Parts: sequence; structure tokens; C-alpha cells
Amino acid sequence: MGTLTINLSAITGNFKKIQGVAASNCAVAAVVKANAYGCGTAAVASALHKAGADKFFIATLTEGLELRTIVGKNPDIYMLNGFDPAHADLYTEENIRPVLNSVGEIEAYSKLASQKGEALPAILHIDTGMNRLGLEKQDVTMLADQSEKLGGIDVQYVMSHFACSDEKNHPMNESQYDVFREAVKAFPNVPQSLANSSGIFRSPDYHFDLVRPGMCLYGLNPTPETYNPMVSAVSLGVEVLQVKDAKAGETCGYNATHCFENNAKLAIVSMGYADGFLRELSNKGALYCKGHRCPVRGRVSMDLTIVDLSEVPENDLPKPGDMLEVLGEHQSADDIAADCGTIGYEIFTSLSRRYQRVYKD
Amino acid sequence: MGTLTINLSAITGNFKKIQGVAASNCAVAAVVKANAYGCGTAAVASALHKAGADKFFIATLTEGLELRTIVGKNPDIYMLNGFDPAHADLYTEENIRPVLNSVGEIEAYSKLASQKGEALPAILHIDTGMNRLGLEKQDVTMLADQSEKLGGIDVQYVMSHFACSDEKNHPMNESQYDVFREAVKAFPNVPQSLANSSGIFRSPDYHFDLVRPGMCLYGLNPTPETYNPMVSAVSLGVEVLQVKDAKAGETCGYNATHCFENNAKLAIVSMGYADGFLRELSNKGALYCKGHRCPVRGRVSMDLTIVDLSEVPENDLPKPGDMLEVLGEHQSADDIAADCGTIGYEIFTSLSRRYQRVYKD
Repeated sequence: MGTLTINLSAITGNFKKIQGVAASNCAVAAVVKANAYGCGTAAVASALHKAGADKFFIATLTEGLELRTIVGKNPDIYMLNGFDPAHADLYTEENIRPVLNSVGEIEAYSKLASQKGEALPAILHIDTGMNRLGLEKQDVTMLADQSEKLGGIDVQYVMSHFACSDEKNHPMNESQYDVFREAVKAFPNVPQSLANSSGIFRSPDYHFDLVRPGMCLYGLNPTPETYNPMVSAVSLGVEVLQVKDAKAGETCGYNATHCFENNAKLAIVSMGYADGFLRELSNKGALYCKGHRCPVRGRVSMDLTIVDLSEVPENDLPKPGDMLEVLGEHQSADDIAADCGTIGYEIFTSLSRRYQRVYKD
Repeated sequence: MGTLTINLSAITGNFKKIQGVAASNCAVAAVVKANAYGCGTAAVASALHKAGADKFFIATLTEGLELRTIVGKNPDIYMLNGFDPAHADLYTEENIRPVLNSVGEIEAYSKLASQKGEALPAILHIDTGMNRLGLEKQDVTMLADQSEKLGGIDVQYVMSHFACSDEKNHPMNESQYDVFREAVKAFPNVPQSLANSSGIFRSPDYHFDLVRPGMCLYGLNPTPETYNPMVSAVSLGVEVLQVKDAKAGETCGYNATHCFENNAKLAIVSMGYADGFLRELSNKGALYCKGHRCPVRGRVSMDLTIVDLSEVPENDLPKPGDMLEVLGEHQSADDIAADCGTIGYEIFTSLSRRYQRVYKD
């Protein structure tokens, strides 16, 4: 039905590119949460590990446990969604290092260290203005005054996260940087980390001791206002099931939302919103047939999408069994995202389980 | 992080309800494509089979092969996305019965029957106006004149599919019905099937010999203009990771798209668009805390969502580890879909692999 091709050397190449961009003495971690942005954690993390990555970030404990089986016991695995005392033993047994987002998490983790009788590694996360996870200003002040609260915690890094780094010159970037610089004074001699993919490209000042690229590893554009410095790693083709003619005045798809002004030639392809081709792409998106744009007509169905072949020259018309391009040379995930008001990340994390995944070294 | 509870007896109860609604002598098949609408094919199909379902529809060959291992060798499995000659042997070995959507598929399947030296079962699909998959008018005329084209094909049903049956009194419902009634004359003595979930509730005239409920089995509303006759089968709760305060004038989330007019209390929950909580729900959707509405503030992130607890009374405020309702007593998939301009089907088929799935008998 569809073939998703993941170019692992593009991903490892992107990782190495970030190593080149990063300030000297700045480590580069790989963010592989959400099934490695839909690309498949097993293959992606394994390839990155072989290419030298020894620090990984995931979101959830389940992801951390899976990743540990993939990369073996040595790499550092940091879990962004924090410390859950209900599963304390899994963190220590599998050496999943939590990013501690609150005083409550710090207290619970410190208590665990005390119970285990050993220092336990973690990252401290400071909220510098995103109002998502992280320590608030008064928490940082408190920790500066009462450093015993961190007893038993081997603080690997103090980190924060940019809210607007994909927007060049957004004032929040500099304000978060300033807040971060002030806050880290509470944790002298602790290495620091601030930049995500876009942050890395905004300023070397943002690099500190560790950068955490995610989306850019997979080829999404971390600098949306200009050309993409990364290499595309994902392509997707879907199978044509049927080619048919529609007459002027006819409609197509659920709720008859498109009416043909002229006679049209259509391809019905084996991909729908259940495959992550968002229903919002109804009457908006397009696929490509040998480079020719084939606009989506009507509603995207659960398992099927209708596209218009009217602009495809006779000699290039597809037959059942041929593949149309969803992601590839003519269209990126960023392009599709722009068609339907979202971001390339969501296009990637929605990629179907039903696609056949092919990994190229 | 999140717990998705599937009430299997609600699903089998819905199936039995449809059996009651269906005209006498009308069989009821269960549509379990797209991982049983996100609910999990293994548990759902197994429960439906035990409850008496012996005809199933899936979309793709992979789904058919998986389903065969679940329900054993007896039930009829029909594959909507047609016959793919490249995998002919898998259809016959596993008794996957294709819905033949074009003359090309009929020719290829007839040829296969000839090679095997036995009649092979299939459904013929007529396009009655949706301009998606199915035989066109001239194809039906041709087949009526040249019935030898169907040689070796044991035609189980002739079917079509409604485009607008969720819209009561949409003129296309009656026009598709009329086209269908005319077209089936080409296939005398072959049982007939037209109605999907909504079609079943529109008119007993639409029932013919087989109805094909999908969405309504899972509790979505097949009659959106009025109350839902089905029983909800899916509930989803997600874990609060952190509770924090935002001050008036501050923003939250990526790109700072929400600015707080007043001081606010927030919960950060372990669910994002990578879990199928569509990014389109940014600043639109809501979760529920003990029945109190908690609107989404700012952008939905990949693994996290921020909701506003300001309307939750002090005594009902959640702590980290508590669960908020995404789907349940106070909010259905249809409700969430309405918040972000899609349909409940997409909410279901997007349900995350990361959720813990709990099946209740």
C-alpha cells in the first residue's frame, strides 16, 4: 500500500553536521522520542549509536526501556517527561536518567538515591518562560539556598527549552537565554544545555555544553525562514489502486465536498487519515506523479485518498500498482504541513504503522 | 502516561444492536480496518467473533492476514482495497476475499481462478457516485453483456458505498440508492450490500442482504443530527506530570500563542500530537478534571499538552500522577472532533501506540 523509506545515512549525516555546527567542547545528543519522530526507534537509534551518538533523549519511560534494549548499556538515556516514583526501580535498573521538572520530582528522586545509598544521575530542567515543564523561578531560588535538597542527585546538566527558536529574532529567544544565564548561577560547575534543533542554528551562544537536536536529524528545516541546511531522510510513496474518469458536474469523496468543473482523471491511492495523511489535507494537499502535481480532491478517507491526474501528461499517467510520491524529491514534510496548517513534526509522528518501512544505510 | 480503556462488551453490544436494527434476513458484518478504528484488532475482532460475527471487512492485505490469525479459518474476511495480483497466493492461501473494484481486478482475479482450477469468492463493488473505488457505469453494462468476464468468480455480494449517509436527507443518499438498484440488475440472484453505519439508520430500504457497520460499533454517532443510539466503548485518561502557576501577561507553549489575561493554574499532561491529540486542538480542545472543563492553552506539543485548571475548585485540583479525562463521561471523540474540525473517526484512528490499552469484558 505504501512504502516509507528512511535513509539512515542521511540521519547520521545530519547528526555529524550538527556536531560540526556545535561549538567546540559542546556535546551533541540525539532526540529519538515518539518512535524517533515516526522513523522507527530501533533502526534510527541503532544507526546513530554506531555513528557515535552516546546521549539520547526520549519522552516516556516505555520509550526509555525500549531504547535501552536497542543501544545497550553504555549510552546515556535521558527521559524528558520526568521522574515517576511509581516506577522508581525501572529508572535505576535500566539507568534511565530523568529530567527533573519540579521540586516534587527532585524530592522523590533524592529520596530514592538515599534509599539506594548511591548518587543517581539526572538533569535539572528550568522553565525559562515556556510555562510547560520545568522548575519555576522560586524553585531555583529555593534550591540555591537549600542545596541539600539535591542530596544524592548527580546533576549531569541543567537545561531549559526554547519556545520560539523556529522564529528567527523572536524576542523570547533572547529573553529565555537571559533567564537561563541568570538561573544557572544557582548551580555552579554544572554543565548547561539549552538549544533544540532551531536553537542550534540561531546562535553559538545558545550551545553551552550540550545541544539536543531532534527534528533536524530527520531532515526537517530548523530555519524555516530560509533554506534547509539538513538532508532529507524520509521518503514515502503510496500505491495507486485505481485510475478512473469523473465527469464535469460530478462530485467525489465523502460529503461531496469537491465538484469537478471539467472532466477529470483521478487516481485512488491506498492511504488515508488512518495512515497519518491528515484529514485536514482534504481538498488541500497533493501527491506527485513523475514530478507532476496531483491535487487531493474531496475528503481524505480513512484508508483512501483521491487525487486529480488532469495535469499529468498522457505518457506519464500511472497504472494500478504504480506509486505516487507523498514525501520525496518534490514535496517535503514541511511542505505538506504548510498545506494544512501544521508543522512537519506532526506529519512525521503521524506516519502509519501500515506503511512498509525500508531502511537504507 | 495515558490509559486507553476499550469496553469490549460495549462493542459487542453495539454489534448486537445493529443486528436488531437490521432488516430480517440481513446479515451484519463488522468493519475492523485501521486497527479496529484504533481500538486494537486482536481484542476487538476476537470479542466480536465470540459474539457471533462471522463476516469482517478490512482495508489492506496485511490487515487481512493479521485478522485471519485472530479469528481462525472460518469467518469470511473481505478486503476493501481490492485485489493485488502481486500477492495473489496470499489471498487464496488465507482465504482473503477481495472486493473487486475495477475491470482490471476482475480480469486478474478470474485469471487466478482459472489457474487454481476452482471458483474463488469475491465481492463486486459498484461506484454509485462517490468517485472513489468501484466499477463505473460502463463497466457494469459491459459485465452484464459479457458475463463470461466473471468466469471463476464466486460473487458473494454486489456492493456500493454511501458518500453522505451521515447527512440526513442528503440527496446523494437517495440518488446512490437508485443507481445501485439499477446497477444490481446486471447481477441477478447475487446478494446485495449498500449500508455503512449511518446508512443503516437512514432507511431499512438500504439494508439489502448485508450491512457493514464500522464507526458505530466503537460508539461514534452514526446519526450526528440527533442523539447517539450507540454505547460509548472508548475512554482515555492521561497523566498529569506537573501543576504550575502562570502569571497574567505570561505566555505558554511553542510560539507563545496563548497569553494569560489573569493569573492561571496549569496542568502539564503526558500527551501530545504524537499520541494523536491533533495539533489542531491547540488553543481549542479541552480535558476534564472531575467533570470540570480544562481548556488547552497554547500549542499542543509532541509529547505534552498544557491545560488551564483555573475553573477547577481548590478541592478538585489534580496532583502529579492524577489522570485527566480526554475521552469519557464528559467528552466523546465526536466532541473533540467538533472542536478541531474533523470527525470522530480520525480521533480514533490516531490513538497513540504509547497509551496503555486496557480491555474490559
